[in-house]
Amino acid sequence: MQTILVLGAGLSSSSLIRYLLKHSVENEWQVRVDDQSIELAKQKVSNHPNGVALSFNALDPEERRPEIEKADIVISMLPARFHVEIAKDCIAYKTSLITPSYISTEMRALDAEARKAGILIMNEIGVDPGIDHMSACRVLDHIRAKDASIHSFKSFCGGLIAPENDNNPWNYKFTWNPRNVVVAGQGSAACFVEENQYKYIPYGRLFQRLDVMEIEGYGAFEGYANRDSLSYRSIYGLDNIPTIYRGTLRRVGFSKAWNVFVQLGMTDDSYKMEKSEGLTPRTFLNSFLPFKEVTSVENKLRKYFTFEDEEMYQKFEWLGMFENDEPFGIPNASPAQLLESILIKKWKLDKGDKDMLVMFHEFVSELNGKRERITSSMVSIGEDQTYTAMSNTVGLPVAICAKMMLTGIIQLKGVHLPVLKSIYDPILDELEEYGIKFEEKSELI
Amino acid sequence: MQTILVLGAGLSSSSLIRYLLKHSVENEWQVRVDDQSIELAKQKVSNHPNGVALSFNALDPEERRPEIEKADIVISMLPARFHVEIAKDCIAYKTSLITPSYISTEMRALDAEARKAGILIMNEIGVDPGIDHMSACRVLDHIRAKDASIHSFKSFCGGLIAPENDNNPWNYKFTWNPRNVVVAGQGSAACFVEENQYKYIPYGRLFQRLDVMEIEGYGAFEGYANRDSLSYRSIYGLDNIPTIYRGTLRRVGFSKAWNVFVQLGMTDDSYKMEKSEGLTPRTFLNSFLPFKEVTSVENKLRKYFTFEDEEMYQKFEWLGMFENDEPFGIPNASPAQLLESILIKKWKLDKGDKDMLVMFHEFVSELNGKRERITSSMVSIGEDQTYTAMSNTVGLPVAICAKMMLTGIIQLKGVHLPVLKSIYDPILDELEEYGIKFEEKSELI
Repeated sequence: MQTILVLGAGLSSSSLIRYLLKHSVENEWQVRVDDQSIELAKQKVSNHPNGVALSFNALDPEERRPEIEKADIVISMLPARFHVEIAKDCIAYKTSLITPSYISTEMRALDAEARKAGILIMNEIGVDPGIDHMSACRVLDHIRAKDASIHSFKSFCGGLIAPENDNNPWNYKFTWNPRNVVVAGQGSAACFVEENQYKYIPYGRLFQRLDVMEIEGYGAFEGYANRDSLSYRSIYGLDNIPTIYRGTLRRVGFSKAWNVFVQLGMTDDSYKMEKSEGLTPRTFLNSFLPFKEVTSVENKLRKYFTFEDEEMYQKFEWLGMFENDEPFGIPNASPAQLLESILIKKWKLDKGDKDMLVMFHEFVSELNGKRERITSSMVSIGEDQTYTAMSNTVGLPVAICAKMMLTGIIQLKGVHLPVLKSIYDPILDELEEYGIKFEEKSELI
Repeated sequence: MQTILVLGAGLSSSSLIRYLLKHSVENEWQVRVDDQSIELAKQKVSNHPNGVALSFNALDPEERRPEIEKADIVISMLPARFHVEIAKDCIAYKTSLITPSYISTEMRALDAEARKAGILIMNEIGVDPGIDHMSACRVLDHIRAKDASIHSFKSFCGGLIAPENDNNPWNYKFTWNPRNVVVAGQGSAACFVEENQYKYIPYGRLFQRLDVMEIEGYGAFEGYANRDSLSYRSIYGLDNIPTIYRGTLRRVGFSKAWNVFVQLGMTDDSYKMEKSEGLTPRTFLNSFLPFKEVTSVENKLRKYFTFEDEEMYQKFEWLGMFENDEPFGIPNASPAQLLESILIKKWKLDKGDKDMLVMFHEFVSELNGKRERITSSMVSIGEDQTYTAMSNTVGLPVAICAKMMLTGIIQLKGVHLPVLKSIYDPILDELEEYGIKFEEKSELI
């Protein structure tokens, strides 16, 4: 009997744990699921004979070490900052580790020790990062196999609402952490490379410089730039690529309207507003508009941005931005917190709503002076509000990787990302069984 | 013989030290001037028989304490963060202290101890803060004396180039710390109160929401909001004032053009640009513009902001923003650093150039249902590049305050700002002898 220890039984662990339990009998696995909430752990294990629900404190070395020692593999779904400590314990007890999180410099530095311990520490094997790496590397390796050069690589990913439940003027609902959506893009300028030129887009311009793309069967999407595109060059072996760009997907029209909040300063999380508890959506909005004796908040907003279409205005009205009845009642709140409190009421998932995960890559390759444009896209719709598209796309690559490690298909040692053919090929193949499938198209340009 | 200890002999101490030396014989003062550069200290003392140039380390308690003990008054022109330590020594040796810097919470907390020691610690007695407090309080006290209520108070200050030397399309030269000008306004949104509504302007809008005002004999100026207007309410006893606003002055047209740098992201100091040493002004600018195969940087800039007037464009051309000959040669530079390196070449003072300090207050008072608008403005032109308007307006209030303390005219004890009539009246009166004079106007509105 092999033992799998899963640390964290939150939303993103649902599909992972279901997969492990489903395959546990044939493979003779015991799946030990730990969460600070024993109820959550029990719920995810749901009385499966090969599952054990635990509630030890994974952040306490004394509590976690006996469990890590006992395990054949550890899967950490904890927040990324805890992974290095877990990894050190895994090295000490010669237990392999998988996490879907971005690899840190500290984690990278454990490579030699992991090899020496004879274990694999696999990182960035969720969806973004994870499926993005695997699906991109598959296409890149195909291009390289033809001896073509790679001129451009653009890649986009977004968590959205499924088309059948897309029924509001923003074409958006929160399918993941609302706070992250509100503060997305803040900080240093987004940086990418275009035709060998480094390009920078500051936060104030981010939602105005958009790419638009069409995915067959799903319509049009727009993408705004992620903070970091540069680090993907070395990950994918594309150090001298003339163009590399990473972006986040929204439905067309979202960014232009979101930009109104950005420009007004309503997404700022760096300071507290005076007497915030007494503000209403209307007075909150008016705080960012100039004082005019005889102009309504509605008309100031229209004028301030010279809305050229009524659709824009409708988006704000639909959110209830002009309502004045109910104060927020949140003391010492930042603008971002107040905006979030408006949005979570309106962008919440209704009963039965499903999420949608969209990924889109565009490559330009060159061979014998001819350029080819290759696109590879994937759309995954959630099953329900437990087995969401996000949970499936994050958890299934982790789970499949665990199975391949336990069954000996993956023999790799050291600290890794899933960019090798021997890793991504079997995982992408099996993901297709779960509807996580990339559609490729190509054309000469 | 009384002893005055001046800590710091930099640019802002020139007029202060000249005043003290000039009055030292009649008042029997010894003026001891300390600076980390003995040359600078000597230069400022310029062999005056009542002056002594020193070069002890004012940040070292062992070195400064004997000097503080010996002094009848200490004037600290050091960076603000060192003042509290100096103040504690002054309390220990019962020596009064003057600084032109903003008062800190720690400084405020020394009030009881200062009273007990029988000394005065006077803060914020330069120009801004300093002359702004004194000149505003004089008008506010006049209004209150008539039993009128104060409806609105707006106040602006700016360091600019004298009209006779104002010969570039920006109508601006650096007369003070260039770096502070480049990063001005960054951070939390500017906050003020207008008609009892708290208003917030984020950095991205700061240079677009301007007040314009005329000062007789000097033409038109524009003002953008300072970060903090709220704290002035309690300083001036205006806790319930419906409108309070503080701003920074520029010549009309400056802010609109400066906003181009802000919008492009060229004032950002939070990250380093890739391969910054090899960038030129042109490629630096192009880093913030979208890639277009056949459009010049010039036309992209025009188009990106849809310049409606050629004057705007000329400002950027005059700065040399399109030049491509000489790389910056500055490795690991932030956008703000590169922009500063362009500006310091172009906005530097020429030989003989004089600076100009402008202050403008606008009050609206109400009595018996009638509203009166009162403006009070002051323009000070520098004498040369040592006795600048900045040096005069910062140093002279400090110096006059010192004289009044040493001659017994000011008897106050404790930690203070210059907002009491017994302080501001004699100081403002004497400042007029140096041409630092406010012109008041009023009209019923």
